[in-house]
Amino acid sequence: MTAGTTRAPNAAPPRRLERPGRPGPGRPGRPGYDLDSLLAVAVEVFNERGYDGTSMEDLARRLGITKSAIYHHVSGKEELLRLATSRALDGWSAVADRARALDAPAIERLEYLVRGSVAVLQAELPYVTLLLRVRGNTEAERAALNRRREFDRLVADLVIQAERDGDIRADVDPAITARLLFGLVNSLVEWYRPAGRSAGPALADAVCTIAFDGLRVTGNQAAR
Amino acid sequence: MTAGTTRAPNAAPPRRLERPGRPGPGRPGRPGYDLDSLLAVAVEVFNERGYDGTSMEDLARRLGITKSAIYHHVSGKEELLRLATSRALDGWSAVADRARALDAPAIERLEYLVRGSVAVLQAELPYVTLLLRVRGNTEAERAALNRRREFDRLVADLVIQAERDGDIRADVDPAITARLLFGLVNSLVEWYRPAGRSAGPALADAVCTIAFDGLRVTGNQAAR
Repeated sequence: MTAGTTRAPNAAPPRRLERPGRPGPGRPGRPGYDLDSLLAVAVEVFNERGYDGTSMEDLARRLGITKSAIYHHVSGKEELLRLATSRALDGWSAVADRARALDAPAIERLEYLVRGSVAVLQAELPYVTLLLRVRGNTEAERAALNRRREFDRLVADLVIQAERDGDIRADVDPAITARLLFGLVNSLVEWYRPAGRSAGPALADAVCTIAFDGLRVTGNQAAR
Repeated sequence: MTAGTTRAPNAAPPRRLERPGRPGPGRPGRPGYDLDSLLAVAVEVFNERGYDGTSMEDLARRLGITKSAIYHHVSGKEELLRLATSRALDGWSAVADRARALDAPAIERLEYLVRGSVAVLQAELPYVTLLLRVRGNTEAERAALNRRREFDRLVADLVIQAERDGDIRADVDPAITARLLFGLVNSLVEWYRPAGRSAGPALADAVCTIAFDGLRVTGNQAAR
Protein backbone atom coordinates (compact mmCIF):
# COMPACT_ATOMS: atom_id res chain seq x y z
CA MET A 1 0.00 0.00 0.00
CA THR A 2 1.30 3.46 -0.78
CA ALA A 3 0.53 6.85 0.68
CA GLY A 4 0.39 8.26 -2.81
CA THR A 5 -2.43 6.14 -4.18
CA THR A 6 -4.66 4.89 -1.42
CA ARG A 7 -4.28 7.05 1.62
CA ALA A 8 -3.01 10.54 1.01
CA PRO A 9 -4.36 11.98 -2.24
CA ASN A 10 -2.10 15.03 -1.87
CA ALA A 11 1.10 13.03 -1.67
CA ALA A 12 3.31 12.63 -4.72
CA PRO A 13 3.34 9.15 -6.26
CA PRO A 14 5.94 6.96 -4.54
CA ARG A 15 9.32 6.64 -6.18
CA ARG A 16 11.15 3.44 -5.42
CA LEU A 17 14.62 4.11 -4.11
CA GLU A 18 17.19 2.00 -5.93
CA ARG A 19 20.36 2.08 -3.88
CA PRO A 20 22.63 3.88 -6.31
CA GLY A 21 24.94 1.32 -7.97
CA ARG A 22 27.16 0.40 -5.04
CA PRO A 23 25.48 -1.83 -2.45
CA GLY A 24 26.12 -0.64 1.12
CA PRO A 25 28.99 -2.41 2.88
CA GLY A 26 27.72 -5.27 5.03
CA ARG A 27 24.06 -4.57 4.18
CA PRO A 28 23.42 -6.61 1.06
CA GLY A 29 19.83 -7.53 1.91
CA ARG A 30 18.57 -4.10 3.08
CA PRO A 31 15.56 -3.15 1.00
CA GLY A 32 15.07 0.20 -0.66
CA TYR A 33 12.32 2.55 0.44
CA ASP A 34 9.44 3.99 -1.47
CA LEU A 35 7.99 7.28 -0.25
CA ASP A 36 5.34 5.50 1.82
CA SER A 37 7.70 3.23 3.75
CA LEU A 38 10.21 6.05 4.21
CA LEU A 39 7.44 8.23 5.61
CA ALA A 40 6.33 5.49 8.01
CA VAL A 41 9.83 5.25 9.51
CA ALA A 42 10.22 9.04 9.68
CA VAL A 43 6.91 9.39 11.55
CA GLU A 44 8.00 6.69 14.00
CA VAL A 45 11.18 8.65 14.75
CA PHE A 46 9.31 11.98 15.00
CA ASN A 47 6.91 10.41 17.52
CA GLU A 48 9.76 8.95 19.59
CA ARG A 49 12.06 11.97 19.65
CA GLY A 50 9.72 14.83 18.85
CA TYR A 51 9.74 16.57 15.47
CA ASP A 52 11.98 19.39 16.70
CA GLY A 53 14.35 16.89 18.29
CA THR A 54 14.82 14.87 15.09
CA SER A 55 17.52 15.77 12.59
CA MET A 56 17.93 14.52 9.02
CA GLU A 57 20.98 12.67 10.38
CA ASP A 58 18.73 10.86 12.89
CA LEU A 59 16.39 9.85 10.07
CA ALA A 60 19.22 8.66 7.81
CA ARG A 61 20.67 6.59 10.65
CA ARG A 62 17.35 4.90 11.43
CA LEU A 63 16.60 4.29 7.74
CA GLY A 64 20.11 2.97 7.14
CA ILE A 65 20.50 5.15 4.06
CA THR A 66 22.32 8.40 3.34
CA LYS A 67 20.80 11.84 3.72
CA SER A 68 21.06 12.35 -0.04
CA ALA A 69 19.02 9.16 -0.54
CA ILE A 70 16.30 10.78 1.58
CA TYR A 71 16.53 13.95 -0.51
CA HIS A 72 15.80 11.78 -3.56
CA HIS A 73 12.25 11.49 -2.17
CA VAL A 74 11.57 14.71 -0.32
CA SER A 75 12.95 18.20 -0.04
CA GLY A 76 13.56 17.78 3.70
CA LYS A 77 12.12 17.31 7.16
CA GLU A 78 9.29 19.80 6.62
CA GLU A 79 8.02 17.96 3.56
CA LEU A 80 7.96 14.73 5.58
CA LEU A 81 5.91 16.52 8.23
CA ARG A 82 3.56 17.92 5.61
CA LEU A 83 3.00 14.52 3.99
CA ALA A 84 2.51 12.80 7.36
CA THR A 85 0.07 15.32 8.82
CA SER A 86 -1.85 15.43 5.50
CA ARG A 87 -2.47 11.74 5.79
CA ALA A 88 -4.26 12.24 9.12
CA LEU A 89 -5.95 15.47 8.01
CA ASP A 90 -7.21 13.93 4.75
CA GLY A 91 -8.84 11.20 6.83
CA TRP A 92 -10.54 13.79 9.03
CA SER A 93 -11.63 15.88 6.01
CA ALA A 94 -13.30 12.87 4.42
CA VAL A 95 -15.20 12.15 7.64
CA ALA A 96 -16.14 15.83 7.99
CA ASP A 97 -17.46 15.96 4.40
CA ARG A 98 -19.61 12.91 5.00
CA ALA A 99 -20.90 14.30 8.31
CA ARG A 100 -21.83 17.59 6.61
CA ALA A 101 -23.67 15.71 3.85
CA LEU A 102 -25.72 13.53 6.23
CA ASP A 103 -29.43 14.24 6.23
CA ALA A 104 -29.76 13.91 10.03
CA PRO A 105 -30.01 16.06 13.17
CA ALA A 106 -26.83 17.71 14.44
CA ILE A 107 -26.44 15.27 17.32
CA GLU A 108 -26.35 12.34 14.89
CA ARG A 109 -23.88 14.11 12.63
CA LEU A 110 -21.79 14.78 15.72
CA GLU A 111 -21.86 11.13 16.70
CA TYR A 112 -20.91 10.23 13.11
CA LEU A 113 -17.96 12.60 13.38
CA VAL A 114 -16.83 11.01 16.66
CA ARG A 115 -17.06 7.49 15.24
CA GLY A 116 -15.31 8.49 12.04
CA SER A 117 -12.49 10.24 13.94
CA VAL A 118 -11.95 7.19 16.13
CA ALA A 119 -11.75 5.05 12.98
CA VAL A 120 -9.20 7.39 11.36
CA LEU A 121 -7.17 7.36 14.57
CA GLN A 122 -7.23 3.56 14.64
CA ALA A 123 -6.25 3.25 10.97
CA GLU A 124 -3.62 6.00 10.92
CA LEU A 125 -2.42 6.01 14.54
CA PRO A 126 1.19 7.23 14.06
CA TYR A 127 0.08 10.00 11.66
CA VAL A 128 -2.69 11.21 13.97
CA THR A 129 -0.31 11.04 16.95
CA LEU A 130 2.18 13.24 15.11
CA LEU A 131 -0.55 15.68 14.06
CA LEU A 132 -1.78 16.05 17.63
CA ARG A 133 1.75 16.86 18.84
CA VAL A 134 2.43 19.54 16.26
CA ARG A 135 3.39 22.75 18.05
CA GLY A 136 3.46 25.34 15.29
CA ASN A 137 7.19 26.14 15.29
CA THR A 138 7.47 25.89 11.47
CA GLU A 139 5.42 26.77 8.38
CA ALA A 140 4.45 23.12 7.76
CA GLU A 141 3.29 22.78 11.36
CA ARG A 142 1.24 25.99 11.19
CA ALA A 143 -0.42 24.82 7.96
CA ALA A 144 -1.39 21.55 9.67
CA LEU A 145 -2.77 23.44 12.68
CA ASN A 146 -4.87 25.61 10.36
CA ARG A 147 -6.44 22.57 8.70
CA ARG A 148 -7.02 21.08 12.15
CA ARG A 149 -8.87 24.21 13.22
CA GLU A 150 -11.31 23.83 10.30
CA PHE A 151 -12.25 20.44 11.69
CA ASP A 152 -12.60 21.86 15.20
CA ARG A 153 -14.93 24.57 13.87
CA LEU A 154 -17.25 21.95 12.38
CA VAL A 155 -17.36 20.14 15.75
CA ALA A 156 -18.15 23.40 17.58
CA ASP A 157 -20.89 24.30 15.05
CA LEU A 158 -22.54 20.90 15.42
CA VAL A 159 -22.46 21.14 19.23
CA ILE A 160 -24.15 24.55 19.11
CA GLN A 161 -26.78 23.25 16.66
CA ALA A 162 -27.44 20.11 18.74
CA GLU A 163 -27.86 22.26 21.82
CA ARG A 164 -30.35 24.49 19.97
CA ASP A 165 -32.22 21.33 18.92
CA GLY A 166 -32.51 20.43 22.62
CA ASP A 167 -30.51 17.23 22.10
CA ILE A 168 -27.38 18.24 24.03
CA ARG A 169 -27.28 19.57 27.56
CA ALA A 170 -27.27 23.36 27.79
CA ASP A 171 -25.64 23.57 31.22
CA VAL A 172 -22.12 23.32 29.79
CA ASP A 173 -20.69 26.02 27.52
CA PRO A 174 -20.83 24.54 23.98
CA ALA A 175 -17.24 25.61 23.27
CA ILE A 176 -16.10 23.60 26.29
CA THR A 177 -18.32 20.67 25.35
CA ALA A 178 -16.77 20.59 21.87
CA ARG A 179 -13.25 20.66 23.27
CA LEU A 180 -13.96 17.99 25.88
CA LEU A 181 -15.63 15.72 23.33
CA PHE A 182 -12.67 15.75 20.96
CA GLY A 183 -10.21 15.85 23.84
CA LEU A 184 -11.73 12.49 24.76
CA VAL A 185 -11.39 11.15 21.20
CA ASN A 186 -7.85 12.41 20.73
CA SER A 187 -6.69 11.11 24.12
CA LEU A 188 -6.89 7.64 22.56
CA VAL A 189 -3.49 8.18 20.90
CA GLU A 190 -1.94 8.03 24.37
CA TRP A 191 -2.87 4.40 24.95
CA TYR A 192 -4.66 2.79 22.01
CA ARG A 193 -2.52 0.19 20.24
CA PRO A 194 -3.92 -1.70 17.21
CA ALA A 195 -3.26 -5.17 18.65
CA GLY A 196 -5.20 -4.37 21.82
CA ARG A 197 -8.45 -5.94 22.90
CA SER A 198 -10.34 -2.74 22.21
CA ALA A 199 -9.97 -2.93 18.44
CA GLY A 200 -12.58 -2.16 15.82
CA PRO A 201 -15.92 -0.44 16.36
CA ALA A 202 -16.02 -1.49 20.05
CA LEU A 203 -13.72 1.41 20.89
CA ALA A 204 -15.93 3.95 19.08
CA ASP A 205 -18.93 2.45 20.91
CA ALA A 206 -17.19 2.94 24.27
CA VAL A 207 -16.27 6.54 23.44
CA CYS A 208 -19.81 7.38 22.29
CA THR A 209 -21.44 5.64 25.24
CA ILE A 210 -19.35 7.54 27.76
CA ALA A 211 -19.42 10.90 25.98
CA PHE A 212 -23.13 10.91 25.10
CA ASP A 213 -24.65 8.87 27.92
CA GLY A 214 -22.11 9.19 30.75
CA LEU A 215 -20.55 6.69 33.15
CA ARG A 216 -23.16 6.88 35.84
CA VAL A 217 -25.89 4.29 36.07
CA THR A 218 -29.16 6.20 36.17
CA GLY A 219 -32.42 5.04 37.69
CA ASN A 220 -33.64 3.88 34.26
CA GLN A 221 -30.52 1.84 33.50
CA ALA A 222 -30.49 0.24 36.94
CA ALA A 223 -34.11 -0.86 36.45
CA ARG A 224 -33.37 -2.55 33.11
CA MET B 1 6.62 31.34 45.94
CA THR B 2 9.20 28.62 45.70
CA ALA B 3 8.96 25.04 44.52
CA GLY B 4 11.01 23.96 47.49
CA THR B 5 8.68 25.13 50.22
CA THR B 6 5.12 25.28 49.02
CA ARG B 7 4.72 23.10 45.97
CA ALA B 8 7.22 20.30 45.58
CA PRO B 9 8.23 18.80 48.93
CA ASN B 10 10.87 16.67 47.20
CA ALA B 11 12.67 19.60 45.64
CA ALA B 12 15.80 20.96 47.24
CA PRO B 13 15.42 24.35 48.92
CA PRO B 14 15.95 27.11 46.38
CA ARG B 15 19.42 28.60 46.18
CA ARG B 16 19.54 32.13 44.92
CA LEU B 17 21.95 32.52 42.06
CA GLU B 18 24.27 35.43 42.70
CA ARG B 19 25.97 36.24 39.44
CA PRO B 20 29.51 35.37 40.46
CA GLY B 21 31.48 38.57 41.04
CA ARG B 22 31.70 39.90 37.50
CA PRO B 23 28.40 41.36 36.22
CA GLY B 24 27.59 40.17 32.69
CA PRO B 25 28.59 42.60 29.95
CA GLY B 26 25.66 44.75 28.83
CA ARG B 27 23.16 43.05 31.16
CA PRO B 28 23.39 44.99 34.39
CA GLY B 29 19.69 44.69 35.28
CA ARG B 30 19.14 41.00 34.53
CA PRO B 31 17.91 39.29 37.68
CA GLY B 32 19.37 36.08 39.03
CA TYR B 33 17.35 32.92 39.24
CA ASP B 34 16.45 30.76 42.16
CA LEU B 35 15.78 27.10 41.51
CA ASP B 36 12.04 27.70 41.20
CA SER B 37 12.21 30.44 38.59
CA LEU B 38 14.95 28.60 36.69
CA LEU B 39 12.74 25.50 36.63
CA ALA B 40 9.76 27.51 35.36
CA VAL B 41 11.75 28.77 32.36
CA ALA B 42 13.23 25.32 31.67
CA VAL B 43 9.77 23.72 31.64
CA GLU B 44 8.55 26.40 29.25
CA VAL B 45 11.38 25.56 26.85
CA PHE B 46 10.86 21.78 27.24
CA ASN B 47 7.17 22.22 26.40
CA GLU B 48 7.94 24.34 23.35
CA ARG B 49 10.76 22.28 21.87
CA GLY B 50 10.24 18.88 23.46
CA TYR B 51 12.50 17.57 26.21
CA ASP B 52 14.64 15.55 23.77
CA GLY B 53 14.91 18.54 21.45
CA THR B 54 16.19 20.89 24.18
CA SER B 55 19.90 21.16 24.93
CA MET B 56 21.58 22.79 27.93
CA GLU B 57 22.74 25.42 25.40
CA ASP B 58 19.11 26.14 24.52
CA LEU B 59 18.28 26.57 28.20
CA ALA B 60 21.28 28.81 28.86
CA ARG B 61 20.35 30.99 25.87
CA ARG B 62 16.73 31.39 27.01
CA LEU B 63 17.75 32.07 30.62
CA GLY B 64 20.42 34.53 29.53
CA ILE B 65 22.99 32.88 31.81
CA THR B 66 25.87 30.51 31.21
CA LYS B 67 25.60 26.73 31.33
CA SER B 68 27.85 26.68 34.41
CA ALA B 69 25.41 29.03 36.15
CA ILE B 70 22.70 26.42 35.52
CA TYR B 71 24.99 23.70 36.91
CA HIS B 72 25.19 25.77 40.10
CA HIS B 73 21.54 24.74 40.69
CA VAL B 74 21.14 21.32 39.12
CA SER B 75 23.28 18.47 37.87
CA GLY B 76 21.79 18.77 34.38
CA LYS B 77 18.76 18.40 32.15
CA GLU B 78 17.58 15.17 33.77
CA GLU B 79 17.45 16.75 37.22
CA LEU B 80 15.35 19.57 35.81
CA LEU B 81 12.97 17.00 34.35
CA ARG B 82 12.84 15.12 37.65
CA LEU B 83 12.05 18.27 39.65
CA ALA B 84 9.44 19.42 37.14
CA THR B 85 7.60 16.12 36.85
CA SER B 86 7.73 15.66 40.65
CA ARG B 87 5.86 18.90 41.05
CA ALA B 88 2.94 17.53 39.01
CA LEU B 89 3.20 14.04 40.50
CA ASP B 90 3.28 15.35 44.09
CA GLY B 91 0.04 17.18 43.36
CA TRP B 92 -1.56 14.00 42.04
CA SER B 93 -0.25 11.95 44.99
CA ALA B 94 -1.80 14.35 47.49
CA VAL B 95 -5.17 14.10 45.70
CA ALA B 96 -4.87 10.30 45.53
CA ASP B 97 -4.12 10.08 49.27
CA ARG B 98 -7.16 12.18 50.10
CA ALA B 99 -9.36 10.12 47.73
CA ARG B 100 -8.17 6.88 49.36
CA ALA B 101 -8.92 8.29 52.83
CA LEU B 102 -12.47 9.43 51.98
CA ASP B 103 -15.21 7.53 53.74
CA ALA B 104 -17.47 7.37 50.67
CA PRO B 105 -18.50 5.00 47.88
CA ALA B 106 -16.01 4.39 45.04
CA ILE B 107 -17.93 6.55 42.58
CA GLU B 108 -17.65 9.55 44.92
CA ARG B 109 -13.95 8.92 45.48
CA LEU B 110 -13.55 8.71 41.71
CA GLU B 111 -15.32 12.02 41.24
CA TYR B 112 -13.08 13.50 43.95
CA LEU B 113 -10.06 12.24 42.03
CA VAL B 114 -11.31 13.82 38.81
CA ARG B 115 -11.96 17.17 40.46
CA GLY B 116 -8.62 17.09 42.27
CA SER B 117 -6.73 16.23 39.09
CA VAL B 118 -8.39 19.07 37.19
CA ALA B 119 -7.39 21.43 40.03
CA VAL B 120 -3.76 20.23 39.94
CA LEU B 121 -3.72 20.64 36.17
CA GLN B 122 -5.07 24.18 36.49
CA ALA B 123 -2.57 25.12 39.22
CA GLU B 124 0.48 23.43 37.70
CA LEU B 125 -0.33 23.51 33.98
CA PRO B 126 3.20 23.61 32.50
CA TYR B 127 4.42 20.87 34.86
CA VAL B 128 1.46 18.58 34.14
CA THR B 129 1.85 19.26 30.40
CA LEU B 130 5.49 18.21 30.55
CA LEU B 131 4.64 15.09 32.58
CA LEU B 132 2.01 14.01 30.06
CA ARG B 133 4.51 14.32 27.21
CA VAL B 134 7.24 12.26 28.87
CA ARG B 135 8.17 9.39 26.57
CA GLY B 136 10.47 7.22 28.70
CA ASN B 137 13.73 7.74 26.77
CA THR B 138 15.76 8.41 29.94
CA GLU B 139 15.93 7.19 33.55
CA ALA B 140 14.24 10.34 34.90
CA GLU B 141 11.42 9.94 32.38
CA ARG B 142 10.92 6.27 33.26
CA ALA B 143 10.80 7.11 36.98
CA ALA B 144 8.08 9.70 36.28
CA LEU B 145 6.12 7.19 34.18
CA ASN B 146 6.29 4.67 37.03
CA ARG B 147 4.83 7.15 39.51
CA ARG B 148 2.19 8.04 36.94
CA ARG B 149 1.20 4.37 36.66
CA GLU B 150 0.54 4.20 40.43
CA PHE B 151 -2.03 6.93 39.99
CA ASP B 152 -3.56 5.15 36.99
CA ARG B 153 -3.88 1.97 39.04
CA LEU B 154 -5.88 3.80 41.70
CA VAL B 155 -8.23 5.13 39.03
CA ALA B 156 -8.67 1.65 37.53
CA ASP B 157 -9.34 0.13 40.98
CA LEU B 158 -11.98 2.74 41.80
CA VAL B 159 -13.72 2.20 38.44
CA ILE B 160 -13.87 -1.56 39.07
CA GLN B 161 -15.21 -1.00 42.58
CA ALA B 162 -17.82 1.53 41.41
CA GLU B 163 -18.96 -0.89 38.74
CA ARG B 164 -19.32 -3.65 41.38
CA ASP B 165 -21.34 -1.21 43.48
CA GLY B 166 -23.69 -0.82 40.52
CA ASP B 167 -22.90 2.91 40.27
CA ILE B 168 -20.99 2.84 36.96
CA ARG B 169 -22.21 1.26 33.74
CA ALA B 170 -21.03 -2.30 33.20
CA ASP B 171 -21.35 -2.28 29.40
CA VAL B 172 -17.91 -0.70 28.92
CA ASP B 173 -14.73 -2.55 29.94
CA PRO B 174 -13.60 -0.88 33.21
CA ALA B 175 -10.02 -0.63 31.95
CA ILE B 176 -11.26 1.37 28.96
CA THR B 177 -13.55 3.45 31.14
CA ALA B 178 -10.62 4.36 33.40
CA ARG B 179 -8.45 5.35 30.44
CA LEU B 180 -11.20 7.38 28.78
CA LEU B 181 -12.05 9.19 32.01
CA PHE B 182 -8.49 10.35 32.60
CA GLY B 183 -7.91 10.82 28.88
CA LEU B 184 -10.68 13.38 29.14
CA VAL B 185 -9.11 15.09 32.17
CA ASN B 186 -5.61 15.13 30.72
CA SER B 187 -6.79 16.42 27.33
CA LEU B 188 -7.34 19.76 29.10
CA VAL B 189 -3.62 20.53 28.80
CA GLU B 190 -4.13 20.87 25.05
CA TRP B 191 -6.37 23.91 25.33
CA TYR B 192 -6.89 25.09 28.91
CA ARG B 193 -5.17 28.42 29.61
CA PRO B 194 -5.41 29.98 33.10
CA ALA B 195 -6.75 33.32 31.84
CA GLY B 196 -9.63 31.64 30.01
CA ARG B 197 -13.30 31.96 30.84
CA SER B 198 -13.40 28.36 32.06
CA ALA B 199 -11.31 29.00 35.14
CA GLY B 200 -11.86 27.65 38.63
CA PRO B 201 -14.24 24.88 39.64
CA ALA B 202 -16.50 25.50 36.60
CA LEU B 203 -14.10 23.48 34.49
CA ALA B 204 -14.12 20.52 36.90
CA ASP B 205 -17.93 20.76 36.94
CA ALA B 206 -18.04 20.56 33.13
CA VAL B 207 -15.68 17.57 33.06
CA CYS B 208 -17.67 15.70 35.73
CA THR B 209 -21.03 16.52 34.14
CA ILE B 210 -19.96 15.20 30.75
CA ALA B 211 -18.01 12.19 32.04
CA PHE B 212 -20.56 11.02 34.60
CA ASP B 213 -23.85 12.16 33.10
CA GLY B 214 -23.09 12.46 29.37
CA LEU B 215 -23.84 15.09 26.74
CA ARG B 216 -27.20 13.81 25.68
CA VAL B 217 -30.37 15.30 27.09
CA THR B 218 -32.42 12.43 28.45
CA GLY B 219 -36.18 12.34 28.93
CA ASN B 220 -35.80 13.31 32.58
CA GLN B 221 -33.60 16.31 31.88
CA ALA B 222 -35.84 17.54 29.07
CA ALA B 223 -38.84 17.42 31.41
CA ARG B 224 -37.10 19.52 34.11
